Amino acid sequence: MTQSVRIAIDAMGGDHGPEVILPGAALALTQHADLKFIFFGDQARLKPLLAANPRLAAVSSLQHTDVEIRMDDKPSQALRNGRRTSSMWQALEAVKRGEADAAFSAGNTGALMAMAKVCLHMIPAIDRPAIAVLWPTLRGESIVLDVGASIGADAQHLVDLAIMGSAMARIVFSLPRPTVGLLNIGVEEVKGIEEVKAASRILRETESTDFDYRGFVEGDDIGKGAVDVVVTEGFAGNIALKTAEGTAKQISAYLREALRGSIASKLGYLLARQAFSALSDKMDPRRVNGGILLGLEGVVIKSHGGSDPVGTARALEIGYEMVRDGLLHKIQDSLTERAEPAPVRIADPEDSVRS
Amino acid sequence: MTQSVRIAIDAMGGDHGPEVILPGAALALTQHADLKFIFFGDQARLKPLLAANPRLAAVSSLQHTDVEIRMDDKPSQALRNGRRTSSMWQALEAVKRGEADAAFSAGNTGALMAMAKVCLHMIPAIDRPAIAVLWPTLRGESIVLDVGASIGADAQHLVDLAIMGSAMARIVFSLPRPTVGLLNIGVEEVKGIEEVKAASRILRETESTDFDYRGFVEGDDIGKGAVDVVVTEGFAGNIALKTAEGTAKQISAYLREALRGSIASKLGYLLARQAFSALSDKMDPRRVNGGILLGLEGVVIKSHGGSDPVGTARALEIGYEMVRDGLLHKIQDSLTERAEPAPVRIADPEDSVRS
Repeated sequence: MTQSVRIAIDAMGGDHGPEVILPGAALALTQHADLKFIFFGDQARLKPLLAANPRLAAVSSLQHTDVEIRMDDKPSQALRNGRRTSSMWQALEAVKRGEADAAFSAGNTGALMAMAKVCLHMIPAIDRPAIAVLWPTLRGESIVLDVGASIGADAQHLVDLAIMGSAMARIVFSLPRPTVGLLNIGVEEVKGIEEVKAASRILRETESTDFDYRGFVEGDDIGKGAVDVVVTEGFAGNIALKTAEGTAKQISAYLREALRGSIASKLGYLLARQAFSALSDKMDPRRVNGGILLGLEGVVIKSHGGSDPVGTARALEIGYEMVRDGLLHKIQDSLTERAEPAPVRIADPEDSVRS
Repeated sequence: MTQSVRIAIDAMGGDHGPEVILPGAALALTQHADLKFIFFGDQARLKPLLAANPRLAAVSSLQHTDVEIRMDDKPSQALRNGRRTSSMWQALEAVKRGEADAAFSAGNTGALMAMAKVCLHMIPAIDRPAIAVLWPTLRGESIVLDVGASIGADAQHLVDLAIMGSAMARIVFSLPRPTVGLLNIGVEEVKGIEEVKAASRILRETESTDFDYRGFVEGDDIGKGAVDVVVTEGFAGNIALKTAEGTAKQISAYLREALRGSIASKLGYLLARQAFSALSDKMDPRRVNGGILLGLEGVVIKSHGGSDPVGTARALEIGYEMVRDGLLHKIQDSLTERAEPAPVRIADPEDSVRS
């Protein structure tokens, strides 16, 4: 463990680039004074921003890069044009070389994943990367993965996701043994695709000291916070995430429209202003900004492309925790535990979180 | 086309049974005076309910059944115990025998699907059933299918879903040529599973006079109402539906909690009461209650198990429209159109609704 937590930052990624990312880093620094940053990007844009913030400048270094990955570059294009040279690649390479403890980018997700795989390599026992996000729930927050790193998953990959997600949950939620559920659908006839059923059997049969497997959960259990970690393959996970975001936006739009309706409702809104601001806080996507790329030999943080400094800082803080509390070691320990022979117990035929 | 629309009703299904379903039917009758009902269920429970509503009794007949399918019966159990004898089966059989134009159940979805397949059979060109629901959006409503009838889908099944969903949309939304999108995920590297990509190619290459294929949509496009019909396989569709329901409930809970916070917010709530009631109306799941089982040689309506009379009536009204406007003929016509040679046009390589 290093004294500081050093984060290598792709300063050119995201919709707003360094003008948002540097202020975000400055904000994260107010939370964690032991952060250090290496910014990769266009010196001409970065230098004045750093100069304007002496406190940030004091803990930061700057490495000029000419190439930036565009938000609409295909991963293959990104690798062709930006391998070794781009700010994104160089941030990852700083982790590989041990110069940084984590890499951060608000850039193109597909490109970041492709580059991270090539540059950092996968953890030997894990065959594909995953993206884990924090999901606000009625109980607080849960971790949901994979939200789109790879499509389809065999039983073993789902088990790997449970291991990696629960390692993250132990850190973020400070829980010794977080609960884990497998996302499934509830129509009896078709309950469970084969891979999900098989993963459930494996998770039940090989109990872990690192997480508490609770069986299947359905889409509406995510928002309830039924489990700390929701495991699913990337296609369904991405659709769930985007659908929830869409629904939240939709209801906000209804609410705004409803409250604009009459003088009474406008007055009511003014009176209940604080309540609405509490509501907005709860629904604020910045609060849970920051996907973590899992399965790699390094901590990689993906911030939302449209994030502002507050969201950027939040993502950096999540990354900080992952480094500080040894995410990679926790994943490795769980993998090792599972590789050893474990007591077998009989699977419950009614494999449901509600049974 | 018959003079009346005759609906065969499984009166024993759902969480509340006949005590909710008969009042629901009575309510639907106030909207469509040309409805007729055949109720299947326990005579001892149904008779007094009918007697209490002479207007409903005047358009209804009653057929006693001893067996009812429980909400937690597995489809195989349901078929073993309830084939021919149960209220659910008999409602379906009434459609098969031409005594009713549609079957209605608020019972066990898996059992209903299994029985419908066995009793009514599939439309020859369609290999698996689907469940289509109305989804409230910022533009009004969209149809989303499949929300869980079958898991996984090859390209041809996705094309069939587009055909069936758009036939339903032409009826429900009175549109000559509804827009159709394929649900997909947006991470570039993995954009599109093979089946979804292949279905997209087929839909682009064989333009239909019955619907306007617009390419891929993502989870957050559903709530925006980006297209009239969202096509996806049942696993992702069910997870999207349940996740949206969960998110809506979660935000309602936040809102209630926020507004209980202080005297000012309570007062504000009172003033803005009408606005909130408009909001509740928009978010009322009863408004869009009523899944339609598609792909069968008959119209089958699935009402939510927990529905009240208002939701039940809404589902019956959707079923009424499907019969009145010839859903099965519309599906058949589209299938026939596609079976004929059509002009081929070059597929757009940037296959996206936003391009």
